[in-house]
Amino acid sequence: MRIESEIVHIETDIIEETNITETIEELLRERSFSQLKGMISEMNPADLALIMSELPEKKVAIFFRLLPKDLAAETFVEIDTDMQEDLIHTFSDVELREVFNELYVDDTVDILEEMPAGVVKRILRNTDRETRHVINELLQYPEDSAGSIMTTEYVRLNSSLTVSDALAVIRRSGVDKETIYTCYVTDNNRLVLGVVTARMLLTSSPDKIIEEIMATNVIVAKTTDDRESVVTALQKYDFVALPVVDDENRLVGIVTIDDAIDVLQEEATEDIEKMAAITPTEKPYLKMTAWGLFLSRIPWLLLLMISATFTGMIITSFESSLASQAVLIAFIPMLMGTGGNSGSQSSVTVIRALSLDELRLGDIFRVVWKEVRIAVLCGGCLALACFAKIWLVDRILLSNDEITLMVDLVICISLFITVLTAKIVGAILPMLAQAIKLDPAVMASPFITSIVDVLSLIVYFRVATAVLGI
Amino acid sequence: MRIESEIVHIETDIIEETNITETIEELLRERSFSQLKGMISEMNPADLALIMSELPEKKVAIFFRLLPKDLAAETFVEIDTDMQEDLIHTFSDVELREVFNELYVDDTVDILEEMPAGVVKRILRNTDRETRHVINELLQYPEDSAGSIMTTEYVRLNSSLTVSDALAVIRRSGVDKETIYTCYVTDNNRLVLGVVTARMLLTSSPDKIIEEIMATNVIVAKTTDDRESVVTALQKYDFVALPVVDDENRLVGIVTIDDAIDVLQEEATEDIEKMAAITPTEKPYLKMTAWGLFLSRIPWLLLLMISATFTGMIITSFESSLASQAVLIAFIPMLMGTGGNSGSQSSVTVIRALSLDELRLGDIFRVVWKEVRIAVLCGGCLALACFAKIWLVDRILLSNDEITLMVDLVICISLFITVLTAKIVGAILPMLAQAIKLDPAVMASPFITSIVDVLSLIVYFRVATAVLGI
Repeated sequence: MRIESEIVHIETDIIEETNITETIEELLRERSFSQLKGMISEMNPADLALIMSELPEKKVAIFFRLLPKDLAAETFVEIDTDMQEDLIHTFSDVELREVFNELYVDDTVDILEEMPAGVVKRILRNTDRETRHVINELLQYPEDSAGSIMTTEYVRLNSSLTVSDALAVIRRSGVDKETIYTCYVTDNNRLVLGVVTARMLLTSSPDKIIEEIMATNVIVAKTTDDRESVVTALQKYDFVALPVVDDENRLVGIVTIDDAIDVLQEEATEDIEKMAAITPTEKPYLKMTAWGLFLSRIPWLLLLMISATFTGMIITSFESSLASQAVLIAFIPMLMGTGGNSGSQSSVTVIRALSLDELRLGDIFRVVWKEVRIAVLCGGCLALACFAKIWLVDRILLSNDEITLMVDLVICISLFITVLTAKIVGAILPMLAQAIKLDPAVMASPFITSIVDVLSLIVYFRVATAVLGI
Repeated sequence: MRIESEIVHIETDIIEETNITETIEELLRERSFSQLKGMISEMNPADLALIMSELPEKKVAIFFRLLPKDLAAETFVEIDTDMQEDLIHTFSDVELREVFNELYVDDTVDILEEMPAGVVKRILRNTDRETRHVINELLQYPEDSAGSIMTTEYVRLNSSLTVSDALAVIRRSGVDKETIYTCYVTDNNRLVLGVVTARMLLTSSPDKIIEEIMATNVIVAKTTDDRESVVTALQKYDFVALPVVDDENRLVGIVTIDDAIDVLQEEATEDIEKMAAITPTEKPYLKMTAWGLFLSRIPWLLLLMISATFTGMIITSFESSLASQAVLIAFIPMLMGTGGNSGSQSSVTVIRALSLDELRLGDIFRVVWKEVRIAVLCGGCLALACFAKIWLVDRILLSNDEITLMVDLVICISLFITVLTAKIVGAILPMLAQAIKLDPAVMASPFITSIVDVLSLIVYFRVATAVLGI
């Protein structure tokens, strides 16, 4: 007998996706619903969500109704907020209940957080009392806390069960749990006693008692912990789930690895945005309005522009000296640029190391000492290259007579000192930010550049005054 | 009866870690080995690795030998490369075999890739023929490919087994598999027919046939696929493992979620480093030598410094005009800085969206149109603020008489045009890089800034010439 399996390859089959959407539109137009049903009932929620995003708006609701109940719910989680809201408006109360009954509570909460008040009320009105209670509790955890990303649907076992009893518990209740691969052993007060994984259960003899096989050193998060540390712990210990306890150490939920990965990506994006002086946004780029993106960018641009007042003041105060040695002006952008780049390299490296927990505050002297050595190497190398380049290109090739040996020296000495300063400032500021509980990521390129701009100008004009006597 | 469980809290208990290390050192000094054994045999590999990194070098080997065999192997994977190498040198051949026999092949391969040739030879000499064969194959997959991060230890099932047969297979062979939570159904030629998860097995009736319960739409990666797309697929579909097939669609390995998370972090770090004009490095910051860090930074600094020749040339060519309106010089840093920051915001946003697959090349016109609107808003807002600031601060407060209404206008018009240009260039360049298969991440701040510096100077001097007639 031949089994018909459909093998989908993650890279090449993306191209075929558009064809699938076209076929589906065709079938919708022809109202060949039963054929369509057969086709999509085997598909993946994530792919279905992608297809829905490409369908004409009017067809979305029809398409969604063709999905089997459980798949419909799973797909509903994957589509974007706007489409969720539109669909909810087309739902009857019965349909609404059907979808939301199939969802895990943490997914429901994620959806509620994005919906307008009216929709939230309607959803809550259509959930049973117990679920509503859980939802309301989860909604109260602060954003970015472990409580806000946990789910309450986990498998809880009694330590006196046998392995085969435990497997029976999983068989009975597992379908509704977000993961069955890590089960928690608690006493009657929900105090955590141990952990058993599905692997332990499956590879132990059926008549063993849970208490004998469970691991008793349990690593837990508190509901109020930063969600980032939960992710770090999951990654560090290679767990698929981490238990979350309240202040009395009672188990209240778990965070699963798939939610953790999403947090990881979000946090990396946030860091990158902050490093580029952008207020982090939650939505994908194409979903943001131009106005929303403008609002996330303009405060920093204004702040950094105003801070450039200092560079202007420094230049103005040296205006007369510059008038006598106008050639010096031409090298201001190069000096400031190289200083900015040098400082950014250091600050970004340190910021990333801090966020990956590779660095702690106590390492600050090791970091500075390392950066000083790197700065001497970089500064020396750049100064030499710059000296040669100015002489060969600007003096000889472009025959700029204003460039004397002394002028060249002034530029290169300033460059060396600027690079040194920039790298030290770039390394220290993120660590200081961490020390005073600020996010180190804001101490990245734009901020460092603004500081280095001022420092490099001061250095440049001091060196020029000293060497050239202007 | 009271069960003694040790609850470790991820956030607060980090502080206690140092105490643990001290206690362990104490016990090592007193040679209280049996007490120490009891204490550490319950600990987690990741924590043990951390403790080992804090122990004095001489004690590391003694400490490692106190660990139970399987825990020792798991801990060995977690410690850093240098320590691994040192330990291998202290191992007898028997010890070496004991450790490496317990490792998963993908971990062995990761270790081998970092070891000097002599050590690699010694390890390979001490593995059995079959494993050596697998290792050699895995070593041949290109870095960053799916093949290079996969493991060959997965559970393979026959489609005609019953659920209880399958569970027996897992019970028998599961201990040696990296994951038992996703099992692959193949024919005799290893062609993939379907997938069953442990959850499906545990919640199905024991006498069902695998063929009836397995999912037949299987999403696979090829060995040569980019490892990033494997991670993206795992994240998109919320899988704990993804099968990897060869060109003939035969199953050769799997990638598990814990390895995928590490890749995710590494890729984010690489992107961030490239965005700051640093050649990506593999080691954590504190493990890199100053020389190594210097080498990863200097090429870009040199390149960017040399590219600043253009700004110098532009300024030189306007030297005489500038001499007549020296006040304009003071605003060069502000103009270039604001332009650079505006461009960086756009480029970084686009780069991140590209790397999260939120944007495709076909979206380029939507992106440009969006950035134009944002740029008009940002540029307008900045120009107005700048105009007011120059008039109030520089003209009235600092009573700089050189600032006329016309000069103020020149600066603000230039600012507006610069912001507009910067945002468009910042959005387009990463997408063009993607189009010609370059990494978009290199088109970030430093690169964009260099281009914007040149553009902003040209704009500034053109506007000044036109408006002020200099």
